[in-house]
Amino acid sequence: MSEIHIRRAERADVEPIVAMLADDPLGARRETPGDPAPYLRAFEVLDADPHQLLAVADRDGDVVGTLQLTFIPGLSRRGATRALIEAVRVRADQRGGGLGALLVEWAVAEARRRGCALVQLTSDASRTRAHRFYERLGFQATHVGFKLSL
Amino acid sequence: MSEIHIRRAERADVEPIVAMLADDPLGARRETPGDPAPYLRAFEVLDADPHQLLAVADRDGDVVGTLQLTFIPGLSRRGATRALIEAVRVRADQRGGGLGALLVEWAVAEARRRGCALVQLTSDASRTRAHRFYERLGFQATHVGFKLSL
Repeated sequence: MSEIHIRRAERADVEPIVAMLADDPLGARRETPGDPAPYLRAFEVLDADPHQLLAVADRDGDVVGTLQLTFIPGLSRRGATRALIEAVRVRADQRGGGLGALLVEWAVAEARRRGCALVQLTSDASRTRAHRFYERLGFQATHVGFKLSL
Repeated sequence: MSEIHIRRAERADVEPIVAMLADDPLGARRETPGDPAPYLRAFEVLDADPHQLLAVADRDGDVVGTLQLTFIPGLSRRGATRALIEAVRVRADQRGGGLGALLVEWAVAEARRRGCALVQLTSDASRTRAHRFYERLGFQATHVGFKLSL
């Protein structure tokens, strides 16, 4: 895996990121990779926010993985900042080789570097393989995740 | 409940907010209400971030409830912004009167006003009464929430 480089996403990465979001049993129902405009607008907002870090795994110039980190200050836990991980994806042809673990471990290290006390994420209840994956990385399934669509 | 006013938290609200965070079976183990300095520092960071909204429920000048809203831009779901709710608390002597629902409904309305597509939160697996509360408000327990302490 020595050729993998994890870095901040750039505008040119939006297209391959969206392709990965759409190539997923849940994402296929809610993404429109043929219509890039809303994704590019969202990228501009994300990129301008110092509390957001959209990352990609780059293998020799190819985007093969992604995740989003959000740094959330708060009063709880003695004024702790927490990091939230969202939208973790590894390109279908790159799975099973440890790239997902590399990405999440990179995110955890980045959270630690920024002084976060906690890293959190939610995973759809149907993604049981992902749950075991996060547990292997040291996460504990202590919470129930609730969503409300507006 | 006509005398309840939900508003953005100010510096003077930090002390009663921390008292509520600490007056909780889980919070009692992790908060230090006698040492306000880390909370005041965190408040400054929170208050300066336009994607954060720390709210309080004010009853005739008394802080009787709180929650934190974070607005998170992202590429998923066609560039949707999501709102994350954290640290929901109602003062012990004010429970059972619908104040929690008022707070969460206010947060959902605020998320809608800001164009969010989704509101999400996690609740500790041990808080089974809270789970029923969120389900009554329309939230669905679709996810597993993972945490990793750093």
